[in-house]
Amino acid sequence: MQLFNMVSLIRKKRDGEVLSAEEIGYIIKSYTKDRIPDYQMSAFLMASYLKGLNDSESAALTKSMLHSGQVLDLSDISGVKVDKHSTGGVGDKVSLLLAPIVASCGVPVPMISGRGLGHTGGTLDKLESITGYNVNIDLNRYREILKKHNMVMAGQTEEIAPADKRIYSLRDVTATVECIPLIASSIMSKKLAEGIDALVLDVKYGSGAFMKTVDEATKLAQKLVSIGEDFGKRTIAYLTNMNEPLGYKIGNWLEVEESIDGLKGNGPDDLMTVTYQLAGTMIYLGGEAESIDVGVSKSKESVASGKAYQKFLDNVEEQGGKLDYVKSPGTYPKAGVTFEIKADQNGYLQEMKAFDFGVASLELGAGRHSKEEDIDPTAGIVLHKKVGNNVKKGETIVTCYTNNSDIVDNVRNMLNDAITISDSKVALPTLISHRIDKDGILQL
Amino acid sequence: MQLFNMVSLIRKKRDGEVLSAEEIGYIIKSYTKDRIPDYQMSAFLMASYLKGLNDSESAALTKSMLHSGQVLDLSDISGVKVDKHSTGGVGDKVSLLLAPIVASCGVPVPMISGRGLGHTGGTLDKLESITGYNVNIDLNRYREILKKHNMVMAGQTEEIAPADKRIYSLRDVTATVECIPLIASSIMSKKLAEGIDALVLDVKYGSGAFMKTVDEATKLAQKLVSIGEDFGKRTIAYLTNMNEPLGYKIGNWLEVEESIDGLKGNGPDDLMTVTYQLAGTMIYLGGEAESIDVGVSKSKESVASGKAYQKFLDNVEEQGGKLDYVKSPGTYPKAGVTFEIKADQNGYLQEMKAFDFGVASLELGAGRHSKEEDIDPTAGIVLHKKVGNNVKKGETIVTCYTNNSDIVDNVRNMLNDAITISDSKVALPTLISHRIDKDGILQL
Repeated sequence: MQLFNMVSLIRKKRDGEVLSAEEIGYIIKSYTKDRIPDYQMSAFLMASYLKGLNDSESAALTKSMLHSGQVLDLSDISGVKVDKHSTGGVGDKVSLLLAPIVASCGVPVPMISGRGLGHTGGTLDKLESITGYNVNIDLNRYREILKKHNMVMAGQTEEIAPADKRIYSLRDVTATVECIPLIASSIMSKKLAEGIDALVLDVKYGSGAFMKTVDEATKLAQKLVSIGEDFGKRTIAYLTNMNEPLGYKIGNWLEVEESIDGLKGNGPDDLMTVTYQLAGTMIYLGGEAESIDVGVSKSKESVASGKAYQKFLDNVEEQGGKLDYVKSPGTYPKAGVTFEIKADQNGYLQEMKAFDFGVASLELGAGRHSKEEDIDPTAGIVLHKKVGNNVKKGETIVTCYTNNSDIVDNVRNMLNDAITISDSKVALPTLISHRIDKDGILQL
Repeated sequence: MQLFNMVSLIRKKRDGEVLSAEEIGYIIKSYTKDRIPDYQMSAFLMASYLKGLNDSESAALTKSMLHSGQVLDLSDISGVKVDKHSTGGVGDKVSLLLAPIVASCGVPVPMISGRGLGHTGGTLDKLESITGYNVNIDLNRYREILKKHNMVMAGQTEEIAPADKRIYSLRDVTATVECIPLIASSIMSKKLAEGIDALVLDVKYGSGAFMKTVDEATKLAQKLVSIGEDFGKRTIAYLTNMNEPLGYKIGNWLEVEESIDGLKGNGPDDLMTVTYQLAGTMIYLGGEAESIDVGVSKSKESVASGKAYQKFLDNVEEQGGKLDYVKSPGTYPKAGVTFEIKADQNGYLQEMKAFDFGVASLELGAGRHSKEEDIDPTAGIVLHKKVGNNVKKGETIVTCYTNNSDIVDNVRNMLNDAITISDSKVALPTLISHRIDKDGILQL
């Protein structure tokens, strides 16, 4: 190990040279063992950001981070294990719906999720708004739950890809987050450590996504698919629109509520379209459907028959969640302060900027400014209209929920600016634009 | 001050934007006060390395580092205060000769020097090989010595440009050293803090220099001159050859010995040519000669008359150095191990790679691998031939001095590889190639 010298390796990347798998392995291993200080790692990350990492470097980085911790072996659990990862959005509660749908169709879903990050929500925070629901489970229990119910939803433990966890924290404070090979390696090291056999990716583009354009999202999706396939895991990515929030509800318990509606067959169109497409693809990859389309049909059937909802209830109970609120969402505590945003003219909703809705939701209490902050499960936003809808002057477009009255004016201004009403009819936005797999890109 | 956010500033530089003087000032001030951690500073330095800093950014950086500590005001000392800075080379003992020459011609020389760095020697280490010589003097004593003798030679105190000191240490371990705007700001912040009125720069190019090509050296010289003139200090730079060592001696006491020879009128041609040119320019800038050429003549006279040597003796005595060895260099302790490199064929010396001679000298004990290491004042290399000289097979080209017998074979191999002998005659290298000042570049 002592054959390498970190200053020389930083210099090499700085000068645009390609590092070997051994060199990258040395960096990640040494950093994890505190043998490389943060200030050298951050110089290396900035050099990587500006000079790039090619496919072999990204694969080596993924592999090193993956093996910095425990790699789950789920081979004793029968079935093709499939997970889904979203690059993050606003109102994106798809995981909550899709896991029970896919699991109820016979495909095991071992899902390790994250917390809210900046303006985007996190699956763990949403699950925790269900009183008692425990996402902090050890790997034995994780395996046990998966075996029993075909699904498990947990947080990243210290044992999973610890190098990624440390590097991610450092990137966050050194302006090296928005870098496709670093993002891709971070995502894939965690997903590959879960013990999956195949993976479906929801790569979001638009104002509420980390990738603002279809072009950037395509590059990230391609890198993710390339790494997944390199590791022998079938990987299919979708590019989906995140210019406006997904569904009608943003906020932790609010999103659980909307997911329950969806699992009962009463979900909004956009949310269900994305959910069924991703779920169908997972069922196909899991070998329980001969095509994606058949998978989509099976997803719809599992919702229509109540199987998916029952699977969700079983999971909540298994992971310690109280069923009372889940079964009667109307009895959940309400936020103390409620206010509305109304249309200031007649017309058609042209824009509901997802990014601003995400930030507003965070300010209302549904997200965190720093890691230490607590989340208010009742805070959030309910949309009454979506882009393309007709609105009348004075009609309520949005209702906000918070327990912090100090931020009301601020959020009101933010949302007023985020909403645009047009005099003329507005075309409905494309929801799922492309599918990307090892064979290439397909426009949908 | 809290209006700025370091992550945003790193991002801005990362994206190639230009930072304002206020933004750069914030970074340097906050870093010096420990409000910005090393890992953010190193990411910023790498972004600056790869995206560059323009002239206004370099000036702002210099100004912030300059004002991070005390800026000497020497206006109560009469005369135009002039200093010289060299970018570092092998066998470069010019400062030791030039300070007493210029001072003896009536121009005050307030000189703050550095220690050996990598393969290059440092004026402070050389001076300290004179038993008792004290370079760690406070600013009052510094002023007093300068007033009394027209010259003073000291190390950078904690009070002078502390921001530069910290940033330099960080650059050293994050592969962000070789960056022209960062190098230029570092040099100029220290020099401007000395209280000088004008500055002569020796920007070296070639294998033994930090700038390998004339082109790179030109860019650095231009940046240095531009910053100096921006601050209202007349600044003249020379580009000088550092492909082979300067003079015949490398190592701390060995270089003092050769400097004493030079001050007595017995110095080698290349060393004296560079010394006289730089000294003459300083005398000109100091207002004691109507042209550089007249300054050069005055330099030569001061050596011929013994005035320069006497100035050196006065300075050594004033700064606590014992005069016995200076007056009788032959009585200085000798290194325990001596070995020679001989010519392996008849011919002409074509190359004596200065970089390798610098590294060899370091290995012999004249330099440091890390800041904590002690230097062996007796260690070093004596050349018996220079590039262009005729050599006979078996003739001694180099004698090495060390107290560490373990490294003999290693150094022997290194130097054998560093020396090339040609069958045919070799042209003498150009010693001083260009002069660069505010009016432009002049080929010499």
